[in-house]
Amino acid sequence: MTTQELLIRAKAAAPALAAAGEEQKNQALLAMAASLEAACDEILAANRADMEAARATISPVMLDRLALSRERVAAMAEGVRQVAALPDPVGRVRRQCTRPGGLTIEQVGVPMGVVAIIYESRPNVTSDAAALCLKAGSACVLRGGKEAYRTARAIVTALGDALETADLPADLISLVEDTTRASATELMTAVGYVDLLIPRGGAGLIRAVTENAKVPCIQTGTGICHVYVDKEADLSMALSIVDNAKTSRPSVCNAAEVLLVHEAVAEAFLPRLEARLVGDRLLDGKQPVELRLDPRAAAIIPGTAAGPQDFDTEFLDYILAVKVVSSLDEAVAHIAAHSTGHSEAIVTADEEAAARFMRRVDSAAVYHNCSTRFTDGGEFGLGCEMGISTQKLHARGPMGLEELCTYKYIIRGNGQVR
Amino acid sequence: MTTQELLIRAKAAAPALAAAGEEQKNQALLAMAASLEAACDEILAANRADMEAARATISPVMLDRLALSRERVAAMAEGVRQVAALPDPVGRVRRQCTRPGGLTIEQVGVPMGVVAIIYESRPNVTSDAAALCLKAGSACVLRGGKEAYRTARAIVTALGDALETADLPADLISLVEDTTRASATELMTAVGYVDLLIPRGGAGLIRAVTENAKVPCIQTGTGICHVYVDKEADLSMALSIVDNAKTSRPSVCNAAEVLLVHEAVAEAFLPRLEARLVGDRLLDGKQPVELRLDPRAAAIIPGTAAGPQDFDTEFLDYILAVKVVSSLDEAVAHIAAHSTGHSEAIVTADEEAAARFMRRVDSAAVYHNCSTRFTDGGEFGLGCEMGISTQKLHARGPMGLEELCTYKYIIRGNGQVR
Repeated sequence: MTTQELLIRAKAAAPALAAAGEEQKNQALLAMAASLEAACDEILAANRADMEAARATISPVMLDRLALSRERVAAMAEGVRQVAALPDPVGRVRRQCTRPGGLTIEQVGVPMGVVAIIYESRPNVTSDAAALCLKAGSACVLRGGKEAYRTARAIVTALGDALETADLPADLISLVEDTTRASATELMTAVGYVDLLIPRGGAGLIRAVTENAKVPCIQTGTGICHVYVDKEADLSMALSIVDNAKTSRPSVCNAAEVLLVHEAVAEAFLPRLEARLVGDRLLDGKQPVELRLDPRAAAIIPGTAAGPQDFDTEFLDYILAVKVVSSLDEAVAHIAAHSTGHSEAIVTADEEAAARFMRRVDSAAVYHNCSTRFTDGGEFGLGCEMGISTQKLHARGPMGLEELCTYKYIIRGNGQVR
Repeated sequence: MTTQELLIRAKAAAPALAAAGEEQKNQALLAMAASLEAACDEILAANRADMEAARATISPVMLDRLALSRERVAAMAEGVRQVAALPDPVGRVRRQCTRPGGLTIEQVGVPMGVVAIIYESRPNVTSDAAALCLKAGSACVLRGGKEAYRTARAIVTALGDALETADLPADLISLVEDTTRASATELMTAVGYVDLLIPRGGAGLIRAVTENAKVPCIQTGTGICHVYVDKEADLSMALSIVDNAKTSRPSVCNAAEVLLVHEAVAEAFLPRLEARLVGDRLLDGKQPVELRLDPRAAAIIPGTAAGPQDFDTEFLDYILAVKVVSSLDEAVAHIAAHSTGHSEAIVTADEEAAARFMRRVDSAAVYHNCSTRFTDGGEFGLGCEMGISTQKLHARGPMGLEELCTYKYIIRGNGQVR
C-alpha cells in the first residue's frame, strides 16, 4: 500500500476509535497484548531476519537495540497492558464554568485524529506507540527504521488482528511500507491527513522536520543536559548527582553532557570528580568517562582539551564536557546559549540561588539537588511516555496520554443568543 | 531597523520581562494605558495620514476598521487596563505532585519568549496584542498591515515610552517596519528567534503560513461555522439562534455561514427563516440576507441557487448557504467535509441527538441550543483574547493569557539519583 493510501485509510478509521468508549479501548488493548504473545514465534522469526540483514551494516549497540527475545516480547505485551490500566484522557473535563447568561462551558479532552510517528529501530516503540495512540483515541501511522521493518510488520499484523476481535478497524494501526526518506517527507507534508507528527530520533531528523514539516509536530528527544555545581553545593551530593546523570545510562536523552562548576569549589570538586568518573571506574572494571575540559578545568585535573563543538554535542556516551564558571549568572548564560531546552540541574544548599537558577533557565525540566535522569514519563507519574518534548508549543517535557490529546469546548444553552 | 535586527533585540529583551514580577508588569501596563491617552493627538494625526493614503485603495468597511477617534483611543487604553487586572499566568502552578522517592514536581506556567503576530489593519490589535504578550511575559514583534503603519508606529512609540518608565526595555514591543510580504516570510522562518507566531488574517495568510512557516504557529480565525436544526428542534429557538449567528455581526469568524436543516422540519422552518432573514429585515430597513439554497431547500423557499463553492466559503457577509439533510449523521458528515473546525451548533430538544452531535463534530467549540457567536475569549470568561485557534495543537478555540504561555517542570530534591 502506498503511504498516501494508508493515510486515507487511517483518517477514515479514526472516527470509529474516537467514538469508542474506555471499555472498548481497554478490551482492544488487552487483546493486543494477548495477540503479541500469541504471535511471539512469528515476531521472533521476523526479528531474526532483520538481525541477519542488518548485521553487516549497523553497530553492535544498534544491533542490541534491535534484538528481541521471548522475554522482550512478553515485556512489550506487559507494556500494552499497563496502558490499558491508565485513566482515559478522552472525555475528561479539564475545565468548566457557568456563565452569567446561563451557558455551561466545558473544556473536554478529545483525540487528535491521526498521529504519525517517525522513529528508529527499537521494536518496542512500535507496540508502545500503537498502544498509547489507541488509548488516546487516535489512529496511528508508524514509520520505523528500515533495519527493523520485518519485526515492526510482524508486530503491527498481530496488533491489527487484535483490533478486529475488539470490533475496531485494523487500519487504526498502520505501518508505512516505504522506509526511505521519501516516506518521512510524505508524512511531514500530509496536510489534512496527519493531525500530529512526532519525530523520535537524532538531530538530523529534527532538522529535517523543522525544515520540511507542514503538519503540526512535536519535536522530541535531543538533550544536551547540564549540571551546575554551585559554590554552595554539598560536594558529596554533587558528586553522586553528576555521576548518576552521566553514567547511569549515557545513551538516553536525559543523561548529562555538560558539567558547569563554580570557580569557588572547582579546586575542591574537580579532583574528586575525576577520581569518581575515571579512577574508581577503572578499578571497578567499568568504562571510564572521558572528560573534555575547558582551560580553567584543565588547570586543575587531567583530561582532554575541549574542542569548539564539545559544549554543543549530545555525546550519548561516556564523555562529559566540563567548564569552570565565575558565577551562577555565567552558568545560566552558558545554558541559554548551548542547551537544547531538555533538562538542567543545579546543586546548591543556597535556596535563593536555586530559585534564581530555576526561574531563569528556560528548559522543559529544571532540577534542584537531583539528577537530570528523572525527566521521564514514568518517573513523573504519567505511567507512560511517548517521548520528551523539547519544544514549547502544546507539550513540554515527558508526553503522556493527556499530551497526545487535544480538547474541545462543549457549550450548552437553552436558546441563548448574543 | 531591519526585521532581523529587531528580532535580535526582542530576544535579548525577553529575559528581563520573564524575570519581572506581576506588580512590575501591571505597573508597565497602567503606564502603557496612560501613555496611549497622553499620545492621543499624535496617534490621531498618524491615523489621519493613514486614512488619507488609504482612501483610494481600500473599501469603506476597511476604512472604518482603520479609523480612530478620541473615543477609540480611550477604549484601547481601557483594554490595556483590563489586561492589568487579569491574573498573571506566569508562575501559576498548573499541576504538582510528590513522588515516592521524595521529589516534588511542579508544572509551572512560563513565558513563551518572543511572540510574533501578523495581522491586518485594525489599530486596536496593536495595543491589545502588546498588552496580552506583556502580561504573558513575552516580548512581542508586531507586523501589521501597511494601511495602518503610521498609526501602529505612533501606538508602539507610546507603549515603548511607557515601558521605559516602568524599568523595562522598549524592545519588548516592536513593530516591523517592512510591511511587504517579505517581512511576513521572514517572521515565519525566524527559527531560534520566534517562539510562537500567531497569524491573524484571512485564508490567504493561513495558507502562506502552512506552506512556509518553520517556527511554531497557532493558526487563527477562519470560521465556516454551521448551525444544524434537528428534527426535534424548537423552531422558534432555532429561528432566533440562526438569526443571531448570521446577522448580529456577519464580519466576524464566529458568525454562521451555513445552515443545515433536517428534512422533517424543513417545510415548517424554512419559510419562517426566509420571512425573518429577508422579509422582516427589508421591512425594518436592514440589509436582507441572501440565501444560497441547495436544490431541496430551493424547492421550499425562494433564494439563489447555491454554487459549488457556497458550502466552502467564509462569506463574512449577509449571505447564508442552506442545505436540507436527511439525518443528523448527514449533517455531521457535511460538517466534517466542509467545516474549518471553528464553531458549530445543534438546535434540538433531543438530548441524545445533541450528545451524539457534540461528540462527533470535531471543532474547537460545539454548541447545543445557543448561538455560535459565543466563541470569544470574553464570553468564555477568559477576560481577553488573542484570537481563536482553529488548530488542535497547544490551543483550541479562544486563546487567553494561559494559552499565550508555555510551562516548565520544576523538580526539587535532596540528592535523589536514579
